[in-house]
Amino acid sequence: EDRKKQEDAKVSDPFSSDPERHPVLRVNCKKPFNAEPPPEILTESYITPHVFFFKRNHLPVPQVDPASYRLKVEGLPGGALTLSLEDLKTRFPKHTITATMQCAGNRRSDMNKVKQVKGLNWGISAIGNAKWSGARLRDVLLALGYGPEAAQWARHVHFEGLDKDETGTAYGTSIPINKAVSEEGDVLLAYEMNGEDIPPDHGFPVRVVVPGVVGARNVKWLGRILVSAEESGSHWQQHDYKGFSPGTDWNKVDPRSAPAIQELPVQSAITAPADGAVIDRGDDTLTVKGYAWSGGGREVVRVDVSLDGGRTWQVARLRSGDDGQPDEPSPPPGRAWAWKLWELTAPLPPEAEELEIVCKAVDSSYNVQPDTVPPIWNLRGLLSNAWHRVKVRVAEE
Amino acid sequence: EDRKKQEDAKVSDPFSSDPERHPVLRVNCKKPFNAEPPPEILTESYITPHVFFFKRNHLPVPQVDPASYRLKVEGLPGGALTLSLEDLKTRFPKHTITATMQCAGNRRSDMNKVKQVKGLNWGISAIGNAKWSGARLRDVLLALGYGPEAAQWARHVHFEGLDKDETGTAYGTSIPINKAVSEEGDVLLAYEMNGEDIPPDHGFPVRVVVPGVVGARNVKWLGRILVSAEESGSHWQQHDYKGFSPGTDWNKVDPRSAPAIQELPVQSAITAPADGAVIDRGDDTLTVKGYAWSGGGREVVRVDVSLDGGRTWQVARLRSGDDGQPDEPSPPPGRAWAWKLWELTAPLPPEAEELEIVCKAVDSSYNVQPDTVPPIWNLRGLLSNAWHRVKVRVAEE
Ligand SMILES: [Mo]
Ligand SMILES: [Mo]
Repeated sequence: EDRKKQEDAKVSDPFSSDPERHPVLRVNCKKPFNAEPPPEILTESYITPHVFFFKRNHLPVPQVDPASYRLKVEGLPGGALTLSLEDLKTRFPKHTITATMQCAGNRRSDMNKVKQVKGLNWGISAIGNAKWSGARLRDVLLALGYGPEAAQWARHVHFEGLDKDETGTAYGTSIPINKAVSEEGDVLLAYEMNGEDIPPDHGFPVRVVVPGVVGARNVKWLGRILVSAEESGSHWQQHDYKGFSPGTDWNKVDPRSAPAIQELPVQSAITAPADGAVIDRGDDTLTVKGYAWSGGGREVVRVDVSLDGGRTWQVARLRSGDDGQPDEPSPPPGRAWAWKLWELTAPLPPEAEELEIVCKAVDSSYNVQPDTVPPIWNLRGLLSNAWHRVKVRVAEE
Repeated sequence: EDRKKQEDAKVSDPFSSDPERHPVLRVNCKKPFNAEPPPEILTESYITPHVFFFKRNHLPVPQVDPASYRLKVEGLPGGALTLSLEDLKTRFPKHTITATMQCAGNRRSDMNKVKQVKGLNWGISAIGNAKWSGARLRDVLLALGYGPEAAQWARHVHFEGLDKDETGTAYGTSIPINKAVSEEGDVLLAYEMNGEDIPPDHGFPVRVVVPGVVGARNVKWLGRILVSAEESGSHWQQHDYKGFSPGTDWNKVDPRSAPAIQELPVQSAITAPADGAVIDRGDDTLTVKGYAWSGGGREVVRVDVSLDGGRTWQVARLRSGDDGQPDEPSPPPGRAWAWKLWELTAPLPPEAEELEIVCKAVDSSYNVQPDTVPPIWNLRGLLSNAWHRVKVRVAEE
């Protein structure tokens, strides 16, 4: 009887079997579930606990039985193959990387302040850093027949989720073949997040982790891999997740004119103090904290912080581990997948009544963030990486 | 007698045997020779003729006899080896790439306008695009013994020029090993530029071409290659060619705090109309032209042009070949070494008396150029890639 009720509920509400979530999350959308942690929690730890890791679901969370789970691999010379979860865990070496994942819409709210865009109103916390473990996609493709012959025609690897809309269309997307098969690409078919089974909201039992690449290509609940000469034809590859000029509006946008977002540009944000905070005039110093990251394995090499709206700058201290703990070892060039946390403690400017605190990061290719939002504004509010600014008041106790 | 005079002159002036140069070049320094073409010539052709290709010499041009030329290769398991020019041409496949090279100091003059920096006052033309042919560095290193054993300890490849200062110190620098040996790095030991022997000013008989990487690592008159666990200790690697925060001055700069510049950030500039030009009010339209490029093999995917100082933007037309000719074929992702030329023809704003024309480029990682110069100003005036701006007057005929 109870079971029948539940099944009825599931039919009427495909989201009814979604997992429980931490109450501290800021929910941008309930169904599908999209939420981010408060900024001050985000930079409390170098590795983001899964409960605080932003959740960006396009569809209901599918219920997957790990025992009967099968991953289909298609497009290779041997034809279609399937791998069980056990196969992934036992037939291929287990590889672990620390990688930051960021939603293409992170910081969209800054674009909404300029002019309304279409999309969830993300703050600055649609980003997280985790340890991911699994089989290398490269190892799997090579074991299943990828070689010089396939390299002649293969140009993309498609990923399809087990999450499906009412019409039965699964979430799908693709990445370029070189990222998938390169020894230095570090793409994983991950079955662990932070040393435990990947939680349902993050793709249980298997998600693709494409480090350095926009969240949208890191397909959760992975059901199918296809090696192809063509890019994915999915909505999410061809019509969404692309960047356009600020002058392009919905009337004249031509999706074919822009490439699908893969690697993301350099990014940083201030997680403390919060915008609108009041600072005690009696304090000698002010401590500013935040995160910084860049796509494509480019390491963040410097973060500049300004307390006067960008007129003068000081260099923040960067770290690659928890406060007081040793840094993680430096990655090889081009494989810096993880963010840096940063901190600056500076004398409180003596006369100021209001401070505009600004941060901007520099990556190993010396790319920098743009100064302002309007020139990078785009109709979908993606790729929002202008300098981050917060205003605080300085007041007597 | 004459010969003795010449030799005396050479002792007193080590630059006396430097080659002739095209009179149209704008000379920033005569000895060593540093010069760039006028901007309007730069974008007349997709492939830059060598006479117009910027010349950035650190030292006198060495006179090298191609018959007795020997390239030393050291640090590999087999010990020191030498290769003649003939060896390079016959023992390894000839590979050709179209690659743009840019000086780290290109557009330094924009930084000088903010506050004086140290370095040659380059305009916007310390950049050029050429077809380079030669042996792949990867092929040479593999043939001479680079393999899994060397990969255990090798982290950098050093290059030394045959150009030397008074103390006998040769120009030297290094690149990371993965760029040198990757199948996708496309690093060449080039002996041809645009289908002919490399001219003396560009490194005859052999220069390293490290596509996507700052000019300073593309060593000319290559004399020695060293595979090493360490980065080059040279002045040019450790003390020059690094980027710093705008707040860093000569008193407090710590060269160890910044990485050596390798891949360059996204760049673009307007080559026509010229700054200060007068536009005929009677013209219906205005045509703006320029170049755009990004380091690390990232392709330029869009150039935005503004006629109103950055308030509104239009998308320029990009090309990868000469005007009216078919584009060069698209490179694989991450191997877009060549620039794009761009053009926008737009209605002349009817009322304006002055136009501030601005351009900014977007690359395939969706990195963008920063809006303004002061926040990226640095004491050496390197990496000057803010939006390029020119002002023109609109006047009656
Ligand atoms: Mo996303
Ligand atoms: Mo340079």
